[in-house]
Amino acid sequence: MRSHAQLTPIGLIRSPFQEPAGTPIQPVYAAQAQGTVEVFSDYVDGLLDLNGFERIWLLYWLDRAPVPCLQLVPFRDDVRHGVFATRAPCRPNPIGLSCVRLLGIEHNVLTVGGMDVLDGTPLLDIKPYVPAFDAFPQSRAGWFEKGHSGRTHADHRFAPETRDSRD
Amino acid sequence: MRSHAQLTPIGLIRSPFQEPAGTPIQPVYAAQAQGTVEVFSDYVDGLLDLNGFERIWLLYWLDRAPVPCLQLVPFRDDVRHGVFATRAPCRPNPIGLSCVRLLGIEHNVLTVGGMDVLDGTPLLDIKPYVPAFDAFPQSRAGWFEKGHSGRTHADHRFAPETRDSRD
Repeated sequence: MRSHAQLTPIGLIRSPFQEPAGTPIQPVYAAQAQGTVEVFSDYVDGLLDLNGFERIWLLYWLDRAPVPCLQLVPFRDDVRHGVFATRAPCRPNPIGLSCVRLLGIEHNVLTVGGMDVLDGTPLLDIKPYVPAFDAFPQSRAGWFEKGHSGRTHADHRFAPETRDSRD
Repeated sequence: MRSHAQLTPIGLIRSPFQEPAGTPIQPVYAAQAQGTVEVFSDYVDGLLDLNGFERIWLLYWLDRAPVPCLQLVPFRDDVRHGVFATRAPCRPNPIGLSCVRLLGIEHNVLTVGGMDVLDGTPLLDIKPYVPAFDAFPQSRAGWFEKGHSGRTHADHRFAPETRDSRD
């Protein structure tokens, strides 16, 4: 029984991106961006048979997210939406979720494609991507389908230091 | 900047399932199971425009998960795999991830279909399901594609009280 919601980093994400501005906002906009996932040695046994999966979910702690904001203008639109209707980082629980391509595993280091995560981000979990559970290509996607911005990379709007000027 | 990985429940998941045994192991096996998501009043403003999405991701704290085990025999197979190559609950950070169908929203209460979560589970986050980010129907899925078990509902194997007999 684990009732106390305390997280333990199980690894570190390494990427070419040192700050939010210029970082792809989703793996789908980061086709050329490779990175690595360094799983701490205590957890290496948990990687058994992961190599058969073409894609994996990374769950990570958005350690450089700004304080929560419940409504915001997301990168893909120019009007305000509720944070739970967006993938923005300023969430009450800043857990990031990215579906990346698994390119290789060497002992405790995973090489992945479609990296959209900041360098040094603490890894919380890896889950296999299973189309039967995760792929619903026809699912209606609300404002995303008619979002007014074609933006594919982050700007400064969710960087911690700019928060005061936004609220 | 939020460097301390401490989670705050933002709501409660209500479902017909009181214990792991008999609970669907994924939403895709829970087509008939409806449930509700009660978002705490402090966070209701974050739901703006969520109603346009057909599916949503629920992230939740698996508060009745057993202590972590790095390798295990999952419900969908009869051989052992690494926990990160499975969706089993006995994870180092027990964060559950379910793609459920959003049937309606009334103020702070979401009605959802495909409920595979235990009643009373603490909600951590809601994210919109966006096919462009999340749907990869052709993605290779390793051992899942040839798993030897057709099991669609949980048994007792990950219930906390049976852990001693499994390890």
